[in-house]
Amino acid sequence: MNEVKKQKMAIIVQSGSLDKLYPVFMLSSTGAAMDVETHLFFTFWGLNALKKGGLESAGLPGDMAGGTEMMKERIKNAKVPTLPELLKMCRQMGNVKVYACSTTMEIMGVKKEELIPEVDDIVGAASFLAIALDSNVQLFI
Amino acid sequence: MNEVKKQKMAIIVQSGSLDKLYPVFMLSSTGAAMDVETHLFFTFWGLNALKKGGLESAGLPGDMAGGTEMMKERIKNAKVPTLPELLKMCRQMGNVKVYACSTTMEIMGVKKEELIPEVDDIVGAASFLAIALDSNVQLFI
Amino acid sequence: MNEVKKQKMAIIVQSGSLDKLYPVFMLSSTGAAMDVETHLFFTFWGLNALKKGGLESAGLPGDMAGGTEMMKERIKNAKVPTLPELLKMCRQMGNVKVYACSTTMEIMGVKKEELIPEVDDIVGAASFLAIALDSNVQLFI
Repeated sequence: MNEVKKQKMAIIVQSGSLDKLYPVFMLSSTGAAMDVETHLFFTFWGLNALKKGGLESAGLPGDMAGGTEMMKERIKNAKVPTLPELLKMCRQMGNVKVYACSTTMEIMGVKKEELIPEVDDIVGAASFLAIALDSNVQLFI
Repeated sequence: MNEVKKQKMAIIVQSGSLDKLYPVFMLSSTGAAMDVETHLFFTFWGLNALKKGGLESAGLPGDMAGGTEMMKERIKNAKVPTLPELLKMCRQMGNVKVYACSTTMEIMGVKKEELIPEVDDIVGAASFLAIALDSNVQLFI
Repeated sequence: MNEVKKQKMAIIVQSGSLDKLYPVFMLSSTGAAMDVETHLFFTFWGLNALKKGGLESAGLPGDMAGGTEMMKERIKNAKVPTLPELLKMCRQMGNVKVYACSTTMEIMGVKKEELIPEVDDIVGAASFLAIALDSNVQLFI
């Protein structure tokens, strides 16, 4: 029996743009493959990524928005999975937990039914901070 | 007597926009309530938040600036405190230290008298890195 | 003989703008001076900083781009080194490793010959995550 504590990574996902969500899901899927337990807390703009269709419609931020399709094309040509595919891979490998920030949901008026089924839980900052304090890696993306 | 070392969180605050300062102060006030010692190092655009009136005038970044008032209204409707109120809460609970980056002050030509009284100290990167190395959680926001 | 393990810092550099690259290289050079081993993983927009001439041409992001020259002037007046000078300092002190993200290179169609000679290696997310898990400080910039 393996009694060694698993390594943990906690990521606060504040951004909802394509160029930030890729690092989030590349790190998560990579972590999952390395048996690292990853916890993702989607807050502020990041919450948009958890809405139905949110990952599909994520684009480049601000004045780079016009380059979104070209970037997606390049990503596809490099044989890198799409964001929804990366999320699916994370779920299949396990080890990746997805949390929606309860305060953001209240501020933005987002209801539970609007979120994708991959959301494990709706939690507040205190719950996530407790996870982060117990993690080996913490990132704010 | 409690001899257990307190948990520590070190946040580098590079951004001065509303959508980044909220996570900073939500995490700090949450940490304070959980008895986590939080150290905030305001650098680059983040320094604007420490100028008198800075927290009050922080808005959404770039092309989202026009949505600042609507966002503040939503935050208010969700009964989430304003940024100055969150800072006050942090100070009342204790455990939250506020540092201004000395190099940024020189670059931006900001004088000590322009900063809010809640600033504990003006320090350089080396002082803050020493704190970060001794912390359980480090974030760049 | 010093058997104490060196402290390590792992930074994911996703951004290629001046206001983010300064914190990266200020932290790295400060860390180097404090004998902290720093590992920099340049991904997405960050990869631009590793192209020949990339550090020299980095500017402020989005609608602040017009202020780049003024910012560089202020930085110079404050006697803060330029980005290429900071990189050179890091290399001279040692302790700073520079990695280019292999996936980003494929997506962006960047070839090894286009990168500056200071790049130590081209690695994937898994290699860098292993370093990050073994570090005292991890940041996403």
